[in-house]
Amino acid sequence: MLGRQTLKLRPTLGSQFSHITRSLATAPLDASRLQVTPISHPSTPKPNDQLVFGKTFTDHMLTVEWTKENGWDAPQIKPYANLSLPPSACVFHYAFELFEGLKAYRTPDNKITMFRPDMNMARMNKSAARICLPTFQSEELVKLMGKLIEQDKHLVPQGQGYSLYIRPTLIGTTAALGVSTPDKALLFVICSPVGPYYKTGFKAVRLEATDYATRAWPGGVGDKKLGANYAPCILPQLQAAERGYQQNLWLFGPEKNITEVGTMNVFFVFQNKATGKKELVTAPLDGTILEGVTRDSVLALAREKLDPNEWEVNERYYSITEVAEKAQKGELLEAFGSGTAAVVSPIKEIGWNGQAIHVPLLPGEQSGPLTKDVAKWIADIQYGKEKHGNWSKVVADLN
Amino acid sequence: MLGRQTLKLRPTLGSQFSHITRSLATAPLDASRLQVTPISHPSTPKPNDQLVFGKTFTDHMLTVEWTKENGWDAPQIKPYANLSLPPSACVFHYAFELFEGLKAYRTPDNKITMFRPDMNMARMNKSAARICLPTFQSEELVKLMGKLIEQDKHLVPQGQGYSLYIRPTLIGTTAALGVSTPDKALLFVICSPVGPYYKTGFKAVRLEATDYATRAWPGGVGDKKLGANYAPCILPQLQAAERGYQQNLWLFGPEKNITEVGTMNVFFVFQNKATGKKELVTAPLDGTILEGVTRDSVLALAREKLDPNEWEVNERYYSITEVAEKAQKGELLEAFGSGTAAVVSPIKEIGWNGQAIHVPLLPGEQSGPLTKDVAKWIADIQYGKEKHGNWSKVVADLN
Repeated sequence: MLGRQTLKLRPTLGSQFSHITRSLATAPLDASRLQVTPISHPSTPKPNDQLVFGKTFTDHMLTVEWTKENGWDAPQIKPYANLSLPPSACVFHYAFELFEGLKAYRTPDNKITMFRPDMNMARMNKSAARICLPTFQSEELVKLMGKLIEQDKHLVPQGQGYSLYIRPTLIGTTAALGVSTPDKALLFVICSPVGPYYKTGFKAVRLEATDYATRAWPGGVGDKKLGANYAPCILPQLQAAERGYQQNLWLFGPEKNITEVGTMNVFFVFQNKATGKKELVTAPLDGTILEGVTRDSVLALAREKLDPNEWEVNERYYSITEVAEKAQKGELLEAFGSGTAAVVSPIKEIGWNGQAIHVPLLPGEQSGPLTKDVAKWIADIQYGKEKHGNWSKVVADLN
Repeated sequence: MLGRQTLKLRPTLGSQFSHITRSLATAPLDASRLQVTPISHPSTPKPNDQLVFGKTFTDHMLTVEWTKENGWDAPQIKPYANLSLPPSACVFHYAFELFEGLKAYRTPDNKITMFRPDMNMARMNKSAARICLPTFQSEELVKLMGKLIEQDKHLVPQGQGYSLYIRPTLIGTTAALGVSTPDKALLFVICSPVGPYYKTGFKAVRLEATDYATRAWPGGVGDKKLGANYAPCILPQLQAAERGYQQNLWLFGPEKNITEVGTMNVFFVFQNKATGKKELVTAPLDGTILEGVTRDSVLALAREKLDPNEWEVNERYYSITEVAEKAQKGELLEAFGSGTAAVVSPIKEIGWNGQAIHVPLLPGEQSGPLTKDVAKWIADIQYGKEKHGNWSKVVADLN
């Protein structure tokens, strides 16, 4: 078991040696330096039907402080508690902040796995580098998340559709108002037990295609998981909601190309009458859309599992005009969003220019046939029913 | 003097009346409800030469909590201290944050004034509305800032070029990871005594014209003072610094139009050989540049004070190509940035495509003649030597 480690494991980082450490390379993120302060009274798990996404948290959190001078300090697992930060901390003023979202699952053989955490860690490091926050050793943070989950393993929900949502976050904490590179930062991880995004299985959503506000731009940061990409999208989302749409489908440029949904990437299925094939299509990674882990998984699985005599799988530009035209000709077959929270989210309608583009669903169901298949492919891997390379990483063993 | 007020002044906001208040309109921001908790040992002012921009703060801060249910709570002036916030607070994840920057000045007759605070308050409310944070009564926050300055009046520096920098900040504090409209927020104001941005008067800066990264775009939020606009600009700033430039001059679009500097708006002075007139030019407010209070003041003063037979004052699009061409023909006369921190900041060189565009300066000086005049026009109003309508607002009287 992990215990509080002694200072002898990190002699060069003690303040008494600061005249030495200043001339050495700064400390890497190191899971072996973990210090654990357990909560005195562990909580009882909530019943599955009371879990609300991102509102209930587990007993512990992980924190790791970083300074430019010394690098990463010893990681701490400690009781979930408020952060205490100076009001001048740069996270409050200049949005020095980024995050990731991952899920941990209980497998049938009582192990706890995470889904492709290496992808999230790589993206988190890219986000950090883009806003001059410190990068870190990906494998070490995966180990630390494993330890955190293990600490609260009784709170990892059981049952298909239930999981532990994990939120690693990195913020700049420099206490100064000058706009410059943070010399202090805090990495923290909190965990929220969650149920299926929609309680009764799939529920197809309505999106509003939006061109009056623009989510991201070439030369911007739309491909990074920065806080900066989120707050500005809320007002257009509220405006879409007033017209009965759950989310915005963000368009870009004079061509009105389809990019993503803000909280999800998006896929369309078209019938190509010329070739007789079906096409699964999503926008290419050109710097304006998030490099989704679920997006990447959907593409990989589709390329593995769909018969190339019947299917094309394409990352290409396509516009709302193309979607509207195909819908009119009966060539729009399906549409769905992909993301960690909802995994796969079928789309039933897209509002555009005051008109509704209807997306077919299976009779009496809330999705099209491929959407349903894709959701099952991924769930089977996430819940350990199928194996897919190293996509499922065991982070704790409850046996 | 202000004292702690009793609950009887706000009976409908007590939690015991929550069943009533839910059906009433929420409370406005109300300076008359201010509660003051003074520090026990006021600090001694630092010598002027030890003031570093935004690193030293005064003894007190202002905080006002807001909830969707009850509106604005009673404002608090209390000792400057850390904020305690849940790690799930939406400010850390989705950049629900915005700020303003203003300065308070000591006038020769020992009053303390703020420069056009109504402009900052209007802009702050526009920023808040854009990211679904609560708006507020501008006049009330001006009053509260006045009370805060009065509380720490011994820390308002004396002397030309010295002032108290005031930082109102508004953050979303909802403790939930779902991306949605905040139902809790915190407004706070902190104050930092500051000296002249450059200790020895003007120091002309070098800017790098940047087109590989994009600060703002149509349909985005570049005209709002959101945290989201700042962190993404730090990496390009570092890269420019490596090449010897202090800041980026942000270009936009295939035309490479000049927009702003990120921390300043920017002005150019051209000679128009056809008309024989000089032209003071800055980019128009099209949603991609900050609506600077200093920018607006420079334009207003230039229009009032410059002889129209000799000068044109224009808000229009102009590109780095135009600037480079005019420089080559000897028609580029001056360039300067404008913002609250540096007020007016002369520019001596612009890097573009690996070449240096040189901007003339007065012989042996760090600015051109108009830049110098503009700086004096504004300083004279700020320090109470000249009166200009209601631009200088008395917020405290030390007599």
